[in-house]
Amino acid sequence: MRGIFYPHSVAVIGVSNSPDNMGRGIVFNLTEFGYQGIIYEVGPKGGVFAGRRIYKSVLDIPDHVDLAVILTPARTIPGILEECGQKGIRRAVVESSGFREFGEEGKKIEEEIIRVASRWGIRFVGPNCIGVINMETGLCTPFPPLRRIVRPGDISMISQSGGVGMSVLNLMANEGLGLNKFVSAGNMLNVQTEELLEYFIEDPGTKYILLYLEGIQDGKRLMEVARKSSKPIIAFKANIGHFGKSIASSHSASLSSNDRVVDAAFRQCGIIRVNDATTLGNDLKILRLPPMRGNNLAIISRSGGHAVIAADACEMSGFSLAPFPKEFLEEIEKHFRASVIKLTNPLDLGDLFDLEIYLKIIDRTLAQKEVDGIVFLHTFNATFEGPRSRELFQKVMELSQKYDKPVAIYVSTEDQEVNYLKRNFNYPIFTQVVETIRALGINRRHYAESQRLRQPAEIPYFPVDKERVKPFLEKASKEKRDLLIHEAAEILGIYGVPMVRGVAVPDEKGAVQAAKQLGFPVAMKVISREISHKSDVGGVQLNLRSEAGFTDAYQDMIRRIRQEYTEAKIEGVLIQSMVTGGRELIVGGRQDDQFGPVVLVGLGGIFVEIFGEVSVRVAPLSHREAMEMIDELRGAAILKGARGLKPSDMQAVVEVLLRISQLLSDFPEIREMDLNPLRVFSVREGCMALDVRMILEKE
Amino acid sequence: MRGIFYPHSVAVIGVSNSPDNMGRGIVFNLTEFGYQGIIYEVGPKGGVFAGRRIYKSVLDIPDHVDLAVILTPARTIPGILEECGQKGIRRAVVESSGFREFGEEGKKIEEEIIRVASRWGIRFVGPNCIGVINMETGLCTPFPPLRRIVRPGDISMISQSGGVGMSVLNLMANEGLGLNKFVSAGNMLNVQTEELLEYFIEDPGTKYILLYLEGIQDGKRLMEVARKSSKPIIAFKANIGHFGKSIASSHSASLSSNDRVVDAAFRQCGIIRVNDATTLGNDLKILRLPPMRGNNLAIISRSGGHAVIAADACEMSGFSLAPFPKEFLEEIEKHFRASVIKLTNPLDLGDLFDLEIYLKIIDRTLAQKEVDGIVFLHTFNATFEGPRSRELFQKVMELSQKYDKPVAIYVSTEDQEVNYLKRNFNYPIFTQVVETIRALGINRRHYAESQRLRQPAEIPYFPVDKERVKPFLEKASKEKRDLLIHEAAEILGIYGVPMVRGVAVPDEKGAVQAAKQLGFPVAMKVISREISHKSDVGGVQLNLRSEAGFTDAYQDMIRRIRQEYTEAKIEGVLIQSMVTGGRELIVGGRQDDQFGPVVLVGLGGIFVEIFGEVSVRVAPLSHREAMEMIDELRGAAILKGARGLKPSDMQAVVEVLLRISQLLSDFPEIREMDLNPLRVFSVREGCMALDVRMILEKE
Repeated sequence: MRGIFYPHSVAVIGVSNSPDNMGRGIVFNLTEFGYQGIIYEVGPKGGVFAGRRIYKSVLDIPDHVDLAVILTPARTIPGILEECGQKGIRRAVVESSGFREFGEEGKKIEEEIIRVASRWGIRFVGPNCIGVINMETGLCTPFPPLRRIVRPGDISMISQSGGVGMSVLNLMANEGLGLNKFVSAGNMLNVQTEELLEYFIEDPGTKYILLYLEGIQDGKRLMEVARKSSKPIIAFKANIGHFGKSIASSHSASLSSNDRVVDAAFRQCGIIRVNDATTLGNDLKILRLPPMRGNNLAIISRSGGHAVIAADACEMSGFSLAPFPKEFLEEIEKHFRASVIKLTNPLDLGDLFDLEIYLKIIDRTLAQKEVDGIVFLHTFNATFEGPRSRELFQKVMELSQKYDKPVAIYVSTEDQEVNYLKRNFNYPIFTQVVETIRALGINRRHYAESQRLRQPAEIPYFPVDKERVKPFLEKASKEKRDLLIHEAAEILGIYGVPMVRGVAVPDEKGAVQAAKQLGFPVAMKVISREISHKSDVGGVQLNLRSEAGFTDAYQDMIRRIRQEYTEAKIEGVLIQSMVTGGRELIVGGRQDDQFGPVVLVGLGGIFVEIFGEVSVRVAPLSHREAMEMIDELRGAAILKGARGLKPSDMQAVVEVLLRISQLLSDFPEIREMDLNPLRVFSVREGCMALDVRMILEKE
Repeated sequence: MRGIFYPHSVAVIGVSNSPDNMGRGIVFNLTEFGYQGIIYEVGPKGGVFAGRRIYKSVLDIPDHVDLAVILTPARTIPGILEECGQKGIRRAVVESSGFREFGEEGKKIEEEIIRVASRWGIRFVGPNCIGVINMETGLCTPFPPLRRIVRPGDISMISQSGGVGMSVLNLMANEGLGLNKFVSAGNMLNVQTEELLEYFIEDPGTKYILLYLEGIQDGKRLMEVARKSSKPIIAFKANIGHFGKSIASSHSASLSSNDRVVDAAFRQCGIIRVNDATTLGNDLKILRLPPMRGNNLAIISRSGGHAVIAADACEMSGFSLAPFPKEFLEEIEKHFRASVIKLTNPLDLGDLFDLEIYLKIIDRTLAQKEVDGIVFLHTFNATFEGPRSRELFQKVMELSQKYDKPVAIYVSTEDQEVNYLKRNFNYPIFTQVVETIRALGINRRHYAESQRLRQPAEIPYFPVDKERVKPFLEKASKEKRDLLIHEAAEILGIYGVPMVRGVAVPDEKGAVQAAKQLGFPVAMKVISREISHKSDVGGVQLNLRSEAGFTDAYQDMIRRIRQEYTEAKIEGVLIQSMVTGGRELIVGGRQDDQFGPVVLVGLGGIFVEIFGEVSVRVAPLSHREAMEMIDELRGAAILKGARGLKPSDMQAVVEVLLRISQLLSDFPEIREMDLNPLRVFSVREGCMALDVRMILEKE
């Protein structure tokens, strides 16, 4: 990967004298950014541009070339790469478009490119991209002419869209955030996002990593790479919400949209997800500050109004405004003329502006054990108070570093002064009160999450006899059907997931016998490979209390299904004991194309029906992750025994989640599954699935 | 009010030669902003400043003075106002601080000021403020020296904080939004927010009104004034979330925090509420565009990535991306070289930049009946494409006006070009994709809401015999207690709110008789003025099925309460029929200090216990408002019969809300009330309160 970002020489292929030639933009940018290596120009028509000979082929270049940057029509690329290979060039950036995004023909060219590249061992970025920037060496390969507006720094970005990447560079320039490396990944025929991420995690020049993703190739790999990172990774994942179009056969599948899985996966591996550019900018800024290790914030403000807004925002972001200790206040009071300032948190500084006093207050506040961070809201007139304010900020920054606690600086002043500060001051400046505090919330959460992720999280293993599961799957697969309810119940049994007692029987006689054996009341469910949603066809009868009632219900149910669903072959019925009490959950999972098996849990009944509230995690789950899944449900309080309710057996549910996680990891051929409902009883009384569905992967 | 904003002459009182004199800032600002009237300076020490004589008193000024702007120590204000009165000055701005915000003494000075002003008929803004700005005449009275950075325009602002007001002016300057008038209202001893709002609604120079509120004096009046406005009113209301500290005796009170009432009141009178400055800026910009009359948005973008982000944001903001009609696409296609652009919505323009084609596409898109608005995402290089882009925007603006449909323009380009556009182009420019679409959502909602508010909304009146309610209230009030359950039930009956049948009896014998008369099963509830939360003390017994069980329960309950709550005097029990079926709601209300009676409704049981979800409105309610209350509950789908549930009798609930609204409006002495639960049955089967509590206002 280093070869792509640190070449000693670059050949720009696709340069001509024509005024609308886009390759010239690449040469322009390399010059504008002060590229430190040698630039060669290549184009079939030859000629001269920008004081350099345009070679007709890379083969004509007299020296060794490290990197080829190619912007020529798609169909020419295989040939050009072949020449690169012969020339000994092993790294390339292919910016041309016109590939798979334009249909069959483009796809064929892609395949050819892959072949040529693999024959010569060429690693390349693209195609259909704007290439790479390395601010350390001035390498800048995008073809749209750029001005060098973003300053050099420690943030590196991987973008799956050139246009969005450029906008983020504009944003960084405006916010005074420095860039280290940038790569527009394009169609990713060869170099992948995950690999670039891995490189940036190792790269000494990079301290913060930014991702703009429209798709995820290999979610498992992405998580694995991200987990190893000690650098903050911020990701803007777009292209959400199109799950509705694909067909989900189970509740679990429809409740665990791709986007929910992305959310869960990012949390699990410590990636900070943002959904808009404003938050992106704020996060990049706030993460540069020391970590906020607790929830206690001090607000110090020159304007009472801003202090009020900040206090509101604290409440919304879950911060506490710890009252200052008495001795601290007495010490502060010494510095003030009597009763001009109300000594509370928020601390309103009023119109006094004495640098020494301000600094002393901030210093003493940071020294308080009870204070985890400060928001300093500074309103000033740039003409009259500009120089003193700049000096103040410099010293506040030093204090923040000294105490290793964040001081988020908000300023309200003229635009020009704000821009000066952002561009010249190496410390983030915020210009919206509410966003400043929201951002501190991100800093706080990121610190807490990374502490959490640092704790070892063992994936538990339950000894099960996997071999016993296979015959069920093989049989169903051969018969091109999903598992029948009693088969799925058997598999649950093998994996130690408790399910209500049930007996599968082929006919009425067997059914009556089973019902008597289990003891009334019982439930009865039809078994048919054609019927997946049993209750939709009246195939579930509950609370059957006597033999007479049972027989009636059996005959009625069978007759009705035979009449109304003539295509359904009834293979029998499952008789189950009736279970009462407890609370209903839905537990399930599915195989995700990007991330593999995922597990979900939600409160049953109307909670999930109306509110669609579930929590999702990528398997395999650790014990802590399974706990967190339940905790993050808004209705978790109900399970914990809020408002006089009996607390439920959460441990039993956690174990079910872990066992399901293991099952779905062991058998990817189980595409979707629901335990709906899973009934959970009071503490130490366990839980029990009352129904189960397993949908298999079909070719 | 006009006298304050359009004076022909201003006396600045509190000017001296001392370099730290703050009154000089006022003179500076009047000059900087090019005030068109005559400026007089007044200060006890006399002298000269800025080429003008400093008069020792207003009485010494040889000419008539329209407006006095006063910045002198608090204790001097009454005397100065007295002199102003004698001089014939009838309008003043008092900027000095040191009043009620500094305790008793300051409060006394305030009272004196009010007396003097009322004697002379002086209307004044302040004290403790930074005064007024009128960009039409250059009147600018704040004392912090300002530069004239915000441009003249049609937005006027009332701010209850000078500091926040200044920040908003900075924001407006940055966004290129023009100011008409500004007023910092301060302690509002004389001129109130509501009155200023009323003036701005009438003021021809003002087209958009901005409020920053930390408190609301007269909520009813505010709503009444706002309802008359045809101008958009945007309010940032801070100082929320402190309700927890006051004591609520009922569920309704604890569920209808002050802030929820503010939310409801603003919606009811069409005020747009914002909670952060970014949204404030975006709203101000988007409301300048023509209204979005439907949900169909077209996205036209130069960058595929931005189109993806925009499409995501559309989904979140509830917009539809209507597919373009075939003929439209064929027409567009004519203008393009074959297959370079995919003709879908979002429409990706790719790298072509032909002004004529762009305009034709936007023109044709706006002409589509199916399209209600456009987001145009334009990424460009300022150096190479700046001039053409500016020309394009100008023409897009004209098209937007021609078709009277909004075209929200997002740009991604260098900061300097963005600033140029914002400051010189009289059409809003957005710089974040997601925010652009969120803002369009505001435009859409504002249009829909104002259409809704324009429909006549009658407040229904139910004929009731109010006189019959009074004795209950008087008796309870005399005995310094709340209403007992059977009294509250009587009042409900008088107001036509259905409640389960019940009989209040003093002793066991009466209880048994009542139970037999109502027929088992029955419920029994203790009646005691000392016991408000009956179930907390075991004072509610449900489902009593036989006489024997009933007697046991009676004796047991009375014994237990007597033992454990020795202070409680038991006055009897209420025997009620048991009611089964239906769904539980909580309905209630309270008197709000700012807005008067408010009514609330929520789904009962765990919904309200765990999620705290209710909807609130300020009474008196119209029929439509009562309907909206139910509709906006997240669980409303349950009542409407989602997922095979039986639909509930919503009309009956609406009527209960309206009757409660009338009751609380008629009797402000009922401070809080709960119907918890109100059981609602299937359509046409009505609803019924099972329990009721009414808390009275006590001195």
